[in-house]
Amino acid sequence: MCSYAKVPKFKPGLISLNSKEGQLIFEQTTYKNSFWQLIPYFITQKNLSFCGPASIAMTLNALKLDPPALTEENLNNYKMFDQDNIFNIKVNKIIKKNKIKKSGMTLNEMFEVLNTFNLKNKIYYGSDINEKQFIEIIIQAILKNKIVIINYCRKYIRNTTSCGHFSPVGAYNAHKKMFLILDVSRYKYQPTWIPQQKLFTAISKGVDSESKKSRGFIISYKE
Amino acid sequence: MCSYAKVPKFKPGLISLNSKEGQLIFEQTTYKNSFWQLIPYFITQKNLSFCGPASIAMTLNALKLDPPALTEENLNNYKMFDQDNIFNIKVNKIIKKNKIKKSGMTLNEMFEVLNTFNLKNKIYYGSDINEKQFIEIIIQAILKNKIVIINYCRKYIRNTTSCGHFSPVGAYNAHKKMFLILDVSRYKYQPTWIPQQKLFTAISKGVDSESKKSRGFIISYKE
Repeated sequence: MCSYAKVPKFKPGLISLNSKEGQLIFEQTTYKNSFWQLIPYFITQKNLSFCGPASIAMTLNALKLDPPALTEENLNNYKMFDQDNIFNIKVNKIIKKNKIKKSGMTLNEMFEVLNTFNLKNKIYYGSDINEKQFIEIIIQAILKNKIVIINYCRKYIRNTTSCGHFSPVGAYNAHKKMFLILDVSRYKYQPTWIPQQKLFTAISKGVDSESKKSRGFIISYKE
Repeated sequence: MCSYAKVPKFKPGLISLNSKEGQLIFEQTTYKNSFWQLIPYFITQKNLSFCGPASIAMTLNALKLDPPALTEENLNNYKMFDQDNIFNIKVNKIIKKNKIKKSGMTLNEMFEVLNTFNLKNKIYYGSDINEKQFIEIIIQAILKNKIVIINYCRKYIRNTTSCGHFSPVGAYNAHKKMFLILDVSRYKYQPTWIPQQKLFTAISKGVDSESKKSRGFIISYKE
């Protein structure tokens, strides 16, 4: 699930994308296909527990799946995935909106939801791999225009007591050894470069209170 | 106001940002501060007439004004401008949400709305300037971290019969002579590089059916 704390502070070692340094790192980054795929669909999670659905909607749009009609106001002549219309019949059999509103979703629930769409998905638990494997898997994914949703415990990265969170990975810089996370809790956090070691700790240490497993990530791509 | 037609087609001369060519142009662009300021707050207009409010919310966030609390679901502990909470007491005296829902807003109405916030704003009508002035004014704005909302008639740019539209300018490439528009009707149009000549035509030709004036643009910045 996606946890939250009220007063976020910037921790040393993190670099906001919207800073001279953050932009320079972006320019010198090889692995950034994901950024271009995702940024036209960058959204804010619509409530405190919807980091998962927001990340799913961005991913499905970025991968150019055939979207359903929008439901908001008079936009129903247009199609795009959003945090409401992803809950179709198949998804509702796996998890209901209200359950996510109450307690978020686990990495495995997200995996099952993504599997109902016309996608290939691979799930990885941080505790099953080492940091080197983590990097190599994500580099290969970005190079092949796959999308990575990362599920991490935020307290290893930010000055916060909150833990579980989902957001898509925007890019990876191999020289700086940093990930760009397109954080869907945009009311709190800007897109930010995060040191790989911190991010690996945040997916491999600690355990989801519901699933009793470590966090991890999912790689999604079109068949 | 923001008009709309149902079947958008890509017109020759336009280049999607999410294409190899579009990304290359971005990398070679000097004037792109606006992109980095705006992209953390990129949103989709919430109904067919809300290109104006969506552009205003992005601009106020990008300029780091002190935002009101979010109203959606349980996000009221967090602050960010959105398409609902920009309608405060001062704004409601100028224009009501329902009026915009019915018939959009004019460039001058947007100017008056922006003037209620703690900002400096300058309004320009396309019919009052030439293409060279248009470019020079926008380059200077981007260099000084000001935000430009452009109000243009879309039929001069896209294969569409629709006309009036608002969206923020993301960047300007002087070599290619192209503008990057962060179109808030994201269910239809990706962020796109548009030739300056086409964009200038679209702000200077034709007349807003309500105001009887040409389209144009507004430059906003913090005092």
